[in-house]
Amino acid sequence: MGSTGDLPKQYKGVIYDEPGKVSTKVVDLDMPEPGAGEVLINLTHSGVCHSDLGVMTNRWAGLPYPTQPGQVGGHEGVGKIVKMGAGTEGSNVKIGDRVGIKWISAICDSCPACLAGHDGVCFNQKVSGYYTPGTFQQYVCGPANYVTPIPSSLPSDAAAPMLCAGVTVYSALRKSGAQAGDWVVLLGAGGGLGHLVHADVFVIALQACQIASKGMGLRVIGIDAGEKKDLATECGAEVFIDHTKGNAEEEVKKATGGLGAQAVLVLTAANGAYASAMGLLKFGGTLVCVGLPEGELKAIATAYPQFLVAKAQRIIGVAVGNRKEAIETLEFAERGIVSTRFTTCKMEELQETFEKMDRGEIKGRVVLDLSA
Amino acid sequence: MGSTGDLPKQYKGVIYDEPGKVSTKVVDLDMPEPGAGEVLINLTHSGVCHSDLGVMTNRWAGLPYPTQPGQVGGHEGVGKIVKMGAGTEGSNVKIGDRVGIKWISAICDSCPACLAGHDGVCFNQKVSGYYTPGTFQQYVCGPANYVTPIPSSLPSDAAAPMLCAGVTVYSALRKSGAQAGDWVVLLGAGGGLGHLVHADVFVIALQACQIASKGMGLRVIGIDAGEKKDLATECGAEVFIDHTKGNAEEEVKKATGGLGAQAVLVLTAANGAYASAMGLLKFGGTLVCVGLPEGELKAIATAYPQFLVAKAQRIIGVAVGNRKEAIETLEFAERGIVSTRFTTCKMEELQETFEKMDRGEIKGRVVLDLSA
Amino acid sequence: MGSTGDLPKQYKGVIYDEPGKVSTKVVDLDMPEPGAGEVLINLTHSGVCHSDLGVMTNRWAGLPYPTQPGQVGGHEGVGKIVKMGAGTEGSNVKIGDRVGIKWISAICDSCPACLAGHDGVCFNQKVSGYYTPGTFQQYVCGPANYVTPIPSSLPSDAAAPMLCAGVTVYSALRKSGAQAGDWVVLLGAGGGLGHLVHADVFVIALQACQIASKGMGLRVIGIDAGEKKDLATECGAEVFIDHTKGNAEEEVKKATGGLGAQAVLVLTAANGAYASAMGLLKFGGTLVCVGLPEGELKAIATAYPQFLVAKAQRIIGVAVGNRKEAIETLEFAERGIVSTRFTTCKMEELQETFEKMDRGEIKGRVVLDLSA
Amino acid sequence: MGSTGDLPKQYKGVIYDEPGKVSTKVVDLDMPEPGAGEVLINLTHSGVCHSDLGVMTNRWAGLPYPTQPGQVGGHEGVGKIVKMGAGTEGSNVKIGDRVGIKWISAICDSCPACLAGHDGVCFNQKVSGYYTPGTFQQYVCGPANYVTPIPSSLPSDAAAPMLCAGVTVYSALRKSGAQAGDWVVLLGAGGGLGHLVHADVFVIALQACQIASKGMGLRVIGIDAGEKKDLATECGAEVFIDHTKGNAEEEVKKATGGLGAQAVLVLTAANGAYASAMGLLKFGGTLVCVGLPEGELKAIATAYPQFLVAKAQRIIGVAVGNRKEAIETLEFAERGIVSTRFTTCKMEELQETFEKMDRGEIKGRVVLDLSA
Repeated sequence: MGSTGDLPKQYKGVIYDEPGKVSTKVVDLDMPEPGAGEVLINLTHSGVCHSDLGVMTNRWAGLPYPTQPGQVGGHEGVGKIVKMGAGTEGSNVKIGDRVGIKWISAICDSCPACLAGHDGVCFNQKVSGYYTPGTFQQYVCGPANYVTPIPSSLPSDAAAPMLCAGVTVYSALRKSGAQAGDWVVLLGAGGGLGHLVHADVFVIALQACQIASKGMGLRVIGIDAGEKKDLATECGAEVFIDHTKGNAEEEVKKATGGLGAQAVLVLTAANGAYASAMGLLKFGGTLVCVGLPEGELKAIATAYPQFLVAKAQRIIGVAVGNRKEAIETLEFAERGIVSTRFTTCKMEELQETFEKMDRGEIKGRVVLDLSA
Repeated sequence: MGSTGDLPKQYKGVIYDEPGKVSTKVVDLDMPEPGAGEVLINLTHSGVCHSDLGVMTNRWAGLPYPTQPGQVGGHEGVGKIVKMGAGTEGSNVKIGDRVGIKWISAICDSCPACLAGHDGVCFNQKVSGYYTPGTFQQYVCGPANYVTPIPSSLPSDAAAPMLCAGVTVYSALRKSGAQAGDWVVLLGAGGGLGHLVHADVFVIALQACQIASKGMGLRVIGIDAGEKKDLATECGAEVFIDHTKGNAEEEVKKATGGLGAQAVLVLTAANGAYASAMGLLKFGGTLVCVGLPEGELKAIATAYPQFLVAKAQRIIGVAVGNRKEAIETLEFAERGIVSTRFTTCKMEELQETFEKMDRGEIKGRVVLDLSA
Repeated sequence: MGSTGDLPKQYKGVIYDEPGKVSTKVVDLDMPEPGAGEVLINLTHSGVCHSDLGVMTNRWAGLPYPTQPGQVGGHEGVGKIVKMGAGTEGSNVKIGDRVGIKWISAICDSCPACLAGHDGVCFNQKVSGYYTPGTFQQYVCGPANYVTPIPSSLPSDAAAPMLCAGVTVYSALRKSGAQAGDWVVLLGAGGGLGHLVHADVFVIALQACQIASKGMGLRVIGIDAGEKKDLATECGAEVFIDHTKGNAEEEVKKATGGLGAQAVLVLTAANGAYASAMGLLKFGGTLVCVGLPEGELKAIATAYPQFLVAKAQRIIGVAVGNRKEAIETLEFAERGIVSTRFTTCKMEELQETFEKMDRGEIKGRVVLDLSA
Repeated sequence: MGSTGDLPKQYKGVIYDEPGKVSTKVVDLDMPEPGAGEVLINLTHSGVCHSDLGVMTNRWAGLPYPTQPGQVGGHEGVGKIVKMGAGTEGSNVKIGDRVGIKWISAICDSCPACLAGHDGVCFNQKVSGYYTPGTFQQYVCGPANYVTPIPSSLPSDAAAPMLCAGVTVYSALRKSGAQAGDWVVLLGAGGGLGHLVHADVFVIALQACQIASKGMGLRVIGIDAGEKKDLATECGAEVFIDHTKGNAEEEVKKATGGLGAQAVLVLTAANGAYASAMGLLKFGGTLVCVGLPEGELKAIATAYPQFLVAKAQRIIGVAVGNRKEAIETLEFAERGIVSTRFTTCKMEELQETFEKMDRGEIKGRVVLDLSA
């Protein structure tokens, strides 16, 4: 236990003042006390993710109750530990360490899902910026054993956007079973996906592209709209297919010696993309579900038992990565293997940022600079 | 090379004389010469499988061309090697060894699928009793490196029915990822399945039940019609659920401490069974497709990306087991862990057997006794 | 937070009053307060393990500093949670739950070893009865997320002895890579092992035998002194080899069709056993180090690179199992698959028990009954 | 079956005319007929490996009988199929395909080792250039299902040297269990290794370095004599340690954040290197035995059960890769990820090449040009 010296009584943060609307407000918040097992972090940066917009506006079906007024949002935060709560003596972090808070901000470490390494399925999980006060504020508490250490040479603003998409796609790539040298398709947009989500999908797809090709030795085929070709290629895609032209299945077969890809990651939320993905797979290959279609539940339209059997294929779902995968993702970022283009904004500009995001005008990532 | 002495010039076998109809004929066949890499086997027994009826009657959609008149059927044969073809000197079998022929009777051992251990996907595979003369005859040729050695203490008639269903379900159980102590659901019949196929499904389900519970340390929940309860329990099912009564999902949850099963093997051909299977799974669990629905292709109706992601679940397809799995299945049989109730018939009685099978009157397995 | 009502201010426990000697003393101890993240447990039983004798007498080389006077020993404790500390609200246990304390009593859940699932390598681990007050007392504190839930139908006295040896051998069997149907050798005593340790080795070997054969579908060859044959056979050993007679290597080869065993677990502390173990392995097989030789460090005398390469074999070291493996071991115990013969003693009799253990007179396990 | 037209009755090849000495002779050989299951290959290139020198001079302890006079050596051959033997119709290769012959030139595909994917342990294996006529000749026979297809854009001279060392180190890296992002130590020379073998060790080490770093996303630490630094760095080593200076263990710890490497591949034949390797490993890490010490068998001097247990470490032996790994290695070569510096020589110059190799004067690889 201990702290780095006098902390202010109050500090700045951003709340959702009218959940359901695109409406945020910069307010003064009371300094929290780290609870048992927790550390208090002085945040300097937080990524601004499309999921935050979904939580604020209650548009996202995945959460069990409406977001409450006064909720502090955000789930990609980075800062320094300034105070240690009770019972943190034996932990692996200390005051002054730079650490991150991610989507899953705490797990119980004792339910069957935790014991099986499925953080995202934890029966008692906390979600940052929804269940708990999030990272759009200058101070936040988090479990000493669950915050993510940030590598020393990685700047905090560059680290923040890795804590969500990067971790998820790295986890998906690991679970896909694809081995170095195997072909992997990253399906960024496969069928009439709208603008809004697409911005985020593309951030995800590019991080996946970099980690797969430069980090894991996988051979990447990117599928997306034609204007993304240059960026995808720069990020390591060996082959790029414009889904608006020609026949993706045929082109994937051609690129892979006629066999298809060992894994296809569906990063978009389009049901059509899921339906087309099965046809891109090699025998023994794996379709990895990452993107979550909105609206009415629809089965993957081509999930035929007969084909799965005849080709010995698999379909798997991958939720957010666990804490070990978060650390490994940041190591890739520290080594320069994965990076994201981002612009920064101040707390006062967050409202405008969300409005732009809502209008589909955000290209790349925005990182909130939390310094006053 | 060599042989066990004088072989007859001709011998007895059973052909499909009018494919499309349930019609077989006992005929005299010329003794074949084992080709390069092949052995000649003097068969004493062959299982009679529902798939043979499908091949004979051209009812089965899975095969590429109509069965030809004069085709010798059968794919579960056991007998002794009596002659070695050219190029078999360095193989692991010799004259006098008892060996078996199974559904996949030969693979190329060099295509990408073979190299990945997916015998059932081999680009150049042979199917016994369809591509090649099958096991309803006293002599058959097979590749020295692909016939399945029969353990010395396992009788040939008991070995024959293991070579198809047993190998498939053992392979499915291994690939399910379930570990000793995990719960596995064997879904024998889940929704209006007809009589005919059901007989075979039940043979399969019982073999799966025995291998899973007595062989692999898995905890088995059987789901089927109520009258099968005693037999399933005897075969090792710890819990039996009558799918015609009550709520299978609720009962599976109750039996498994609220969590669901680690794996569900769908052994039936009913699309309804596939749809209900997803709800029986634990987080991180695996739906294993084994049974092949007939008729129009339908997707697994509950293969929702959202659910797969939220529960980190998997769907996999499993074709017939490979040659290593065949050997391991026979070792389970040799140890008495798995056995099948069967009756025997002579070649002259095979026609009647198929007619009964066609009318849904066969309970358990029939093994053809090939001695004159 | 909360408690089950009034707790006494003091309670009974047993301390090592003169570490270095076989000397214990029953004393009154002050009731502790559960720290942050901790629960307070009212223990009813604790196993008495040979390792406790090693800690008490400072004979055991594996620990970094001499045991302190006043240390409460014990590391196989079972009892009910009676009070929850701060920060335990989101945990998976509650007041009234029966839970266990094991050798590793706490880990940090955040160091690289923890994240890799290696509890026994945790950089900040606690060892019960040495680093922390152990289980030879009526009340003990433990981390809410690390205590082991006890299955409801498993008696506490039967559960206690599973928490150490059982967990370790189960972990070793899992990590051995042996699959259902494979042969596993349990090397209980291979070369001049003394009496003292042997008693414990045999408890371990029998638990391994039961879990392997009855729980995991492995085929067990037990190697030990001849008088253990009946008990080993009863516990599931399919083959028993008296290491004092004949040639173990030859007999293992004979039992396994000439190939050797897929895995050999060395449970004894004899260097000679390690040297002989390599010869019992099949190609591709795994030698699993469990027993720890005392005295001067000696390499495994037959760990030749040439042989390891030619036979594609592996040598692995397995420390205590992790918390998931502890839960799974107790499930095997609940199902009756593994059980240990034990006698019980009262706190006042613990001194005599340790004296007997020191003279090699203990057969089977002793469980301390902590009721007054 | 069939052939590409008229083949000569005789052709040129190089034999060991006086095994035991460094003595080869260019001779005329009779054209062989491909046996059952075999193809006839018109070779254009063959790598010249230090193992060939060992076979020719009978210096290598690993082989069961003295090399016979007249033996055609060589085991890294590449050429085109010109004739198909009986029983090759269903294979995956055809006349005109470019294929390779490697150290293991044939396996039985039916013994337990083959079924487990351990080509190098096959009970009936053939070794090219020792059991069978090797690749120092213009024509050679090999099994249709075991020759290695050469990617179309990879030149034959560049492909040849990949078929031995490359395949072995790729297999070793795969089996090491190291994942993308993990640190791997390549121990090229650790203690007084002589000149002769060292030339080959370095070829191996560089191929390992390239495949690991550029192909598989592993982070490589090379340990060797100082003058190799530049080449190792060029091949992808992120850290290079001069084993003749300073403390390798300390430097490996420093480079890896204090933890050590996930895997250490011992590529040299020095017993001293094996002894020092254990200290370079992280908890949970794997020592991979590749290099084979000559002379008296010595155990790995630091293979202590106590340390293996305390750090949950593994020691594994890896023989030559299997046919799937051969294909994958050539794919890495086709993509330019791995390449070897080589010079070519004619059959008439092979004697001189072996003499230089025997004097330790060969740097890099020599490839035999088999054109007349």
